[in-house]
Amino acid sequence: MSRPANRRPENPKIDWHLPTVSSSASAHHMSRELFVLTYGALVAQLCKDYEKDEDVNKYLDSMGYNIGIRLVEDFLARSSVKKCRSYSETTDIIAQVAFKMYLGVVPTVTCSNSTRFSLILDKNPLVDFLEELPAGRSSLCYCSLLCGAIRGALEMIHLAAEVTFIQDTLKGDDVTEIGIAFLKKIETRKHKRNK
Amino acid sequence: MSRPANRRPENPKIDWHLPTVSSSASAHHMSRELFVLTYGALVAQLCKDYEKDEDVNKYLDSMGYNIGIRLVEDFLARSSVKKCRSYSETTDIIAQVAFKMYLGVVPTVTCSNSTRFSLILDKNPLVDFLEELPAGRSSLCYCSLLCGAIRGALEMIHLAAEVTFIQDTLKGDDVTEIGIAFLKKIETRKHKRNK
Repeated sequence: MSRPANRRPENPKIDWHLPTVSSSASAHHMSRELFVLTYGALVAQLCKDYEKDEDVNKYLDSMGYNIGIRLVEDFLARSSVKKCRSYSETTDIIAQVAFKMYLGVVPTVTCSNSTRFSLILDKNPLVDFLEELPAGRSSLCYCSLLCGAIRGALEMIHLAAEVTFIQDTLKGDDVTEIGIAFLKKIETRKHKRNK
Repeated sequence: MSRPANRRPENPKIDWHLPTVSSSASAHHMSRELFVLTYGALVAQLCKDYEKDEDVNKYLDSMGYNIGIRLVEDFLARSSVKKCRSYSETTDIIAQVAFKMYLGVVPTVTCSNSTRFSLILDKNPLVDFLEELPAGRSSLCYCSLLCGAIRGALEMIHLAAEVTFIQDTLKGDDVTEIGIAFLKKIETRKHKRNK
């Protein structure tokens, strides 16, 4: 006895408008909670495997880096983001398009100088189910994976950057602040392909 | 110099309609790719830690169980699902509401008898970036976490079930099939609270 489920058409409804994305994007939507809990399980596993907080942080960062270098392709394919003309524009795109797309939140952007920017989250979606850091893990950068992912994605578009947590609500700060320090100028293409 | 980002209002747009969810649900939306890659990183870490595929499978399942028992609360709070009257209805809700909410896909439901059902996915979203199982890992149930999560969630609503992979595209099958075998009758409440 086979009984097909009531399959509804996938209505493309995008809840952000700048820039436009392909109409197939809604097919990729999911609710964040499963991700948040799975991420928690990943961090717990790493805490079991590595005694030192710094090792867990490093591992999460490097895992994030590997995710970032793969995710950037998906991002460029699904967003219509063009080459950014400044670090400021790049940071805005990370906040308004990438964060919105992959985490469902839009951080506020601040800049301290022409190469240093911060993404500020009043509420960090990754720690939704977490009230505090695990016992004896006070140096854990719980969300290091995010820093690594941003760093990896930027590297793939030829932007070297240091990405670190500056403030963390899990450590008693009022907000979560991710600092992005760009290390090199955006390379301007000297040789145009279609000359 | 502080420059607030162009913060757009969170427009609640729900792309599924049955049953209704609270309008705040869209705030929980994210794109699936980050989850899929993070899940891949988790599986890779477990493969590093455990030599035997069965141990990885067991660990993923038990991790999923712990996620399921927490996720069910979020699910009941955000969906307006009422007490189900049959296993068939329960399975339909898992497919049409829970899978849609947490993974952005709706599996087809089939049933082989009154207590055994299958969720069939033509395309398993969790293996989007994966072409085949890692080398030497032919017994890996890559998505065991899903089985554990379903089992855990069902247990929290007093339904004991065995949840296992019956078919897996990663193992050469045409579709991914998750089998749910309910083990006990749904308990009918004998004592109503508001008598």
